[in-house]
Amino acid sequence: MTKEWVIIAPERAKRPDQFRSKEEKKAVAEHDPNCPFCFGNEAQTPPAVYEVKSDGKWLHRVVPNKFAAVSDEHSCVRRQAGKYLTADGFGIAEVVIETPYHNRPLTHLSHIEMRGVIETYRQRYIELAKDGRIDLITIFKNHGPRAGTSLEHPHSQIIATGMIPVHVRYPLQQALIHHDTFGECPFCVLIKDEINDKVRVIMDEKHFVAYCPFASKSPFEIRIMPKRHCSQFSCIDGEEADEFAFILQTILKKIYRGLGDPDLNYVIESMPISDGETHYFHWHLNIVPKLTTPAGFEIGTGIYINIMPPEEAASYMRGFKTD
Amino acid sequence: MTKEWVIIAPERAKRPDQFRSKEEKKAVAEHDPNCPFCFGNEAQTPPAVYEVKSDGKWLHRVVPNKFAAVSDEHSCVRRQAGKYLTADGFGIAEVVIETPYHNRPLTHLSHIEMRGVIETYRQRYIELAKDGRIDLITIFKNHGPRAGTSLEHPHSQIIATGMIPVHVRYPLQQALIHHDTFGECPFCVLIKDEINDKVRVIMDEKHFVAYCPFASKSPFEIRIMPKRHCSQFSCIDGEEADEFAFILQTILKKIYRGLGDPDLNYVIESMPISDGETHYFHWHLNIVPKLTTPAGFEIGTGIYINIMPPEEAASYMRGFKTD
Repeated sequence: MTKEWVIIAPERAKRPDQFRSKEEKKAVAEHDPNCPFCFGNEAQTPPAVYEVKSDGKWLHRVVPNKFAAVSDEHSCVRRQAGKYLTADGFGIAEVVIETPYHNRPLTHLSHIEMRGVIETYRQRYIELAKDGRIDLITIFKNHGPRAGTSLEHPHSQIIATGMIPVHVRYPLQQALIHHDTFGECPFCVLIKDEINDKVRVIMDEKHFVAYCPFASKSPFEIRIMPKRHCSQFSCIDGEEADEFAFILQTILKKIYRGLGDPDLNYVIESMPISDGETHYFHWHLNIVPKLTTPAGFEIGTGIYINIMPPEEAASYMRGFKTD
Repeated sequence: MTKEWVIIAPERAKRPDQFRSKEEKKAVAEHDPNCPFCFGNEAQTPPAVYEVKSDGKWLHRVVPNKFAAVSDEHSCVRRQAGKYLTADGFGIAEVVIETPYHNRPLTHLSHIEMRGVIETYRQRYIELAKDGRIDLITIFKNHGPRAGTSLEHPHSQIIATGMIPVHVRYPLQQALIHHDTFGECPFCVLIKDEINDKVRVIMDEKHFVAYCPFASKSPFEIRIMPKRHCSQFSCIDGEEADEFAFILQTILKKIYRGLGDPDLNYVIESMPISDGETHYFHWHLNIVPKLTTPAGFEIGTGIYINIMPPEEAASYMRGFKTD
């Protein structure tokens, strides 16, 4: 769909376990008095726009991002500036505080708590989608400094924008052309093929499959894709959300154990709101551990050199038990 | 040309000098007995494919990359693998050893030496372009670990490939459409506009202009662009090569002093060989200092958040004397 070339360079490959981080992680306390996301420090953030409570205490909390690069006080009208196009930085940016506890990353939550995080994502997605100015809602997580965050407290982010970038639109257009030409959803076909092939599949559950994408750009990239044809993340029903929480947490645990808690990003890639449901796209979640550094060749050509074949990455990850 | 959106977030901006690296750099000796690129250690590399000599000693040396991710023993024939497309990793990868001395980065070369590096690039470009299998020649530099290199000895790389990636083709197509619609080269227009505007220009010389591109993706990105319409890097004549060496070195010195020798990449972006000369593209060089970390939002949307407006970056860089 992206029409991108990737160089898979297995002759340079390390053994999978050599990607494991050697960094010693410091033990972290349950509560940090200086952390705006810790329980008891709620006054350090703007008021919550969404909260899940139990016994008078909050379990998950969504707050406006105080340091957002976008603001919903702007307009999203484009202006011509000579040959260039500009617009004010319209958007809505929120932080999902996944847990009140400073030292409880997603891998260490109970299933019920993990399920609560997914439901929080879904509720915010539904709410933000009601805003007619919004075109695209991106839910993502930055874990660790190499993944772009300095805040240790477990959290994810949501940014809703009034524009659809070419990075999102280009593969959608390729999927659309495939659909119009072959009369099929390319993602429905891809899932069937991957499940039949088995080599890149890590988990094959009732509603979701987790696999290492063919010719992924970087080592141990993992995609979680719904089997049911569905373009918008918000479409998942209760049973699916339950399994999605399970499969995402299991994959994160496999990464945590197999690669030694590496810095990572994940992103929920969903159809632009303004396109609604389509016949040619499945929403999905991409996980990208930060294990290598793109260099001049990648910047110049967009061709990534991946020293870990996805087939080996999948085999390694299948081997990790999480019980 | 890329149709990409970038968020310029000046309210989060640091002052330009706060981007300056605080790392202490170790003093480095002129010769490292374990470095394959140092004078006297020539036997540690494959035989040179190009060498510039003076008084029996080499000044610049180009060798095949021993650890290349591509090889010219492969074919570049594509094969259908189900819905996927594969090919062997055909390509030619070379290392340009810029100087025999371990401790002499480009910023510290004489003008004659810097001119020799540019001429070495040009000679290799011309030679590799003769190979009918080659579509694209990328000359680039990785300086420092954050830019993807662990080798300290000053060097650049050349990778010639038998494919044109979409990352390269997409903006070329946009430039082509502009040309066909408006009857002008978009780069010729852009250069004139930037020189008139002045705000993003750092140096305006006889043959080249150095400027911070409008809405660049990351802080202090700088582009050096020939004024004469020319698509292939190899087209530069002697006087232009001389000035190109001067302007590139001056800009690198400004970065070195202004930002404290940050890790950086640069790439010469030239028209694919297989397209020859065209009416719609100028070859150019892009410099990307590695000062920030792309995170989940960038991965998901391709929208970069740049906290340093290019106009301020240009103003800061203009102020740095290099004599």
